[in-house]
Amino acid sequence: MLRQSFHELALATRGRGLYDFTREVEEWIAKNNFKAGLVTLHLRHTSASLLIQENADPDVRTDLERFFARLVPDGDGLFVHTCEGDDDMPAHVRTALTTVNLSLPLRGGELALGTWQGIYLWEHRRAPHARTVALHFIGE
Amino acid sequence: MLRQSFHELALATRGRGLYDFTREVEEWIAKNNFKAGLVTLHLRHTSASLLIQENADPDVRTDLERFFARLVPDGDGLFVHTCEGDDDMPAHVRTALTTVNLSLPLRGGELALGTWQGIYLWEHRRAPHARTVALHFIGE
Amino acid sequence: MLRQSFHELALATRGRGLYDFTREVEEWIAKNNFKAGLVTLHLRHTSASLLIQENADPDVRTDLERFFARLVPDGDGLFVHTCEGDDDMPAHVRTALTTVNLSLPLRGGELALGTWQGIYLWEHRRAPHARTVALHFIGE
Repeated sequence: MLRQSFHELALATRGRGLYDFTREVEEWIAKNNFKAGLVTLHLRHTSASLLIQENADPDVRTDLERFFARLVPDGDGLFVHTCEGDDDMPAHVRTALTTVNLSLPLRGGELALGTWQGIYLWEHRRAPHARTVALHFIGE
Repeated sequence: MLRQSFHELALATRGRGLYDFTREVEEWIAKNNFKAGLVTLHLRHTSASLLIQENADPDVRTDLERFFARLVPDGDGLFVHTCEGDDDMPAHVRTALTTVNLSLPLRGGELALGTWQGIYLWEHRRAPHARTVALHFIGE
Repeated sequence: MLRQSFHELALATRGRGLYDFTREVEEWIAKNNFKAGLVTLHLRHTSASLLIQENADPDVRTDLERFFARLVPDGDGLFVHTCEGDDDMPAHVRTALTTVNLSLPLRGGELALGTWQGIYLWEHRRAPHARTVALHFIGE
């Protein structure tokens, strides 16, 4: 018998960088005893992203951050929208270059993540922020 | 009782830029009295994108456009595929850098969009185009 | 009556480039007689992407590859994570700039792909790899 369920995850960021929240998603799944279905995540912001990336060597996250800092530099003279700070428009561009939605099959109570995949919130602003992710499950 | 529903949205663009069509999606939801579930959008083209971005200051859209115009310039000598115009291959690259799929939870008849999030069709070609978005709903 | 189904697709890549696997997905749909619903694809890797792109002129794939090779060059001195080869960190960045999830409505037994859209696995590593895509269907 198929059913669905909703949840909202609150995540506090401490400045720019990648925050692994795979465990928070897995805890929600385990607590509700979801076994098989589809898990959807939607980040309710326009200056941070959701990303599935390598969870082994932390240098990968450092390099992702360095690459995006070079590609979309803070304070770029190209930008008109500067009223919220010189990292605000770069944060919108970084979000456009990545995504705010993820969809993951769930089977045998386990997300279909690969061995080295983790689910990250990528904070693009330099200041700490309160972020929320809307979660949806449909399945058994 | 879970059910599903399909729709195809026709959107006419008037050249390159971001077109907010949040209201068209919300009208489809309201008309069908969808209350809780998952809404999926798929854009059926390879030279335009779907994007969730800030719907407040229009300068954000201007700057997104300016950034992508600099990153993927029209008429770049790198490109071999030029038979459909000097903005065609850049449009494919912009589409690859963004996305053509979105997935949004719906709860209490409301999409899980954040306060400042709108749903945009990003037209990457300079000429007007007729675009279609396939919509899917599953839920109650 | 709604039902769901799972599958895992094994795809062997022969080095960097775009591999069309639309037919493999369609064969799974036909074999199981899925008629209407939502198809989700999740790539279980962090150095390759899923991409919906033009399936007509092969020059489009060549140019996508050329653009990404210029944007994220192998052996870039910016990167710290080099232990797995000079194409490894660029592969992670390319994956972050694209996506590993796709969601497609299915109606009348046909995916909601546009006329020119194909489903691609984009291999970002130079060496051959064994890749797996988790498939999920919910519908009728």
